[in-house]
Amino acid sequence: MESKKTIKTIAVLIAMEAEAEPLVSLLNLAPCPKSHHHAPLPSVVRSGVIDFNNKSGDGEEEEERKCEIVVVTCGNDAVHGVDSVGTVNAALAAYEVLKTHEPDVLVNCGTAGGFKAKGCAIGDVFLVDEVKYHDRRIPIPTFTKYGISAIETWKTPKMREHFRAELKSGVCSTGNSLDATDTDLEMMLQNDASVKEMEAAAVAKVCEMFKVPFVCVKAITDIVDGPHATETEFLENLAMAGRRLQETVPKVLEFMSGKSVDAL
Amino acid sequence: MESKKTIKTIAVLIAMEAEAEPLVSLLNLAPCPKSHHHAPLPSVVRSGVIDFNNKSGDGEEEEERKCEIVVVTCGNDAVHGVDSVGTVNAALAAYEVLKTHEPDVLVNCGTAGGFKAKGCAIGDVFLVDEVKYHDRRIPIPTFTKYGISAIETWKTPKMREHFRAELKSGVCSTGNSLDATDTDLEMMLQNDASVKEMEAAAVAKVCEMFKVPFVCVKAITDIVDGPHATETEFLENLAMAGRRLQETVPKVLEFMSGKSVDAL
Repeated sequence: MESKKTIKTIAVLIAMEAEAEPLVSLLNLAPCPKSHHHAPLPSVVRSGVIDFNNKSGDGEEEEERKCEIVVVTCGNDAVHGVDSVGTVNAALAAYEVLKTHEPDVLVNCGTAGGFKAKGCAIGDVFLVDEVKYHDRRIPIPTFTKYGISAIETWKTPKMREHFRAELKSGVCSTGNSLDATDTDLEMMLQNDASVKEMEAAAVAKVCEMFKVPFVCVKAITDIVDGPHATETEFLENLAMAGRRLQETVPKVLEFMSGKSVDAL
Repeated sequence: MESKKTIKTIAVLIAMEAEAEPLVSLLNLAPCPKSHHHAPLPSVVRSGVIDFNNKSGDGEEEEERKCEIVVVTCGNDAVHGVDSVGTVNAALAAYEVLKTHEPDVLVNCGTAGGFKAKGCAIGDVFLVDEVKYHDRRIPIPTFTKYGISAIETWKTPKMREHFRAELKSGVCSTGNSLDATDTDLEMMLQNDASVKEMEAAAVAKVCEMFKVPFVCVKAITDIVDGPHATETEFLENLAMAGRRLQETVPKVLEFMSGKSVDAL
């Protein structure tokens, strides 16, 4: 990565509208004038230039801290009328936002299940270290690692240190099902997963192709290795997790905005 | 679909190079001058204008039968050095080929597992009726059908009748794993699957977004409900299935080429 480059444009990719809405409202983003580039994807694209000096008011840095924030959601499936969750739509949304907006960094945020065996509690927010798949089993020796497709997120030691008290670290494991079979759980254990969701590994791969730094922030809605069904806990805690993202993601965006890559 | 439109450009999407090579050789396709549009995807794009009158020599139709054929493969994963199989890369390759080349129809072809309970034998070739996912379980009532994402392939009654002796009919079920767990098998049974592979449902969805007719041709390399491990049979029969596609896919392309949609 070009280490002296400063961060002027950040793309934020969020699968579901309910996960994105609190953040979009808080940042007061408007429909993006480049939305037509995303057609015919169902993606919804909102953007705005945020002056983080004004917002933070800490007076620490007087240089330009304005940053364009482009929030893209996967949008509503035209046939089924639900959010287009899962890896395929997330990868397509990532591909088009990277082509059209050429952001300096892409942040994938959203909700996730957490493993209590790894210390997760509902409401925790993770700044993910690494993403892997748990539902791409290809038992041909040359293909096995491709199936898992482990990708480290962007190394940001200063940012990680800055948020040490607020954001946990760990591996995020991706698959296209909301539930988990015993085989999935076994694969997640092998992946050393702290959190489980349905998009991150696909988005990370597209970022890798474009050589764009990938950051991943996930808020825990449900406990994978707990007594309750994922779907029940997920629906109960979706709004709360959306608010947790609203609290934390703007701080992450502010921390990165206008900084050189070296300063992260 | 515009029923009077004639078919002048056909995109053919194939995941693996070994599946595509016999077809590319036979049609004598060259690197596509629009390949750069596909960057940074690893897709390999080859194209050519084929005069099917010359090739068929049946003299039946004297009008223009020239057709541009664009074959796109998912390409080599830059990190793992293997073909980029699975739904994410197939959807990305489909998205870019549809944006760049604006084909009149997209044909996804490749290899697949077949169910002997549905009458499949190794070497059979299917002209698929419908595609569904078997690995996107989302047990929230509003999301369940989105997860399966059943999409009928293009209605082509005359083409289906023409190839009745040569190409079988059935449902193709898609998932990101080469193997199948008991849960996968149960889902495939629910899907009424005759064949199982790793891309078709994702490609169909992208075609649906673009309102481009989707055709799906799959050659059987292995028996899912048989005694042998998929990976063993798959590797043994991959070259044979590539040749079966080389025999059948050009006939399908020739049948569609230059015809109006009504004539299919």
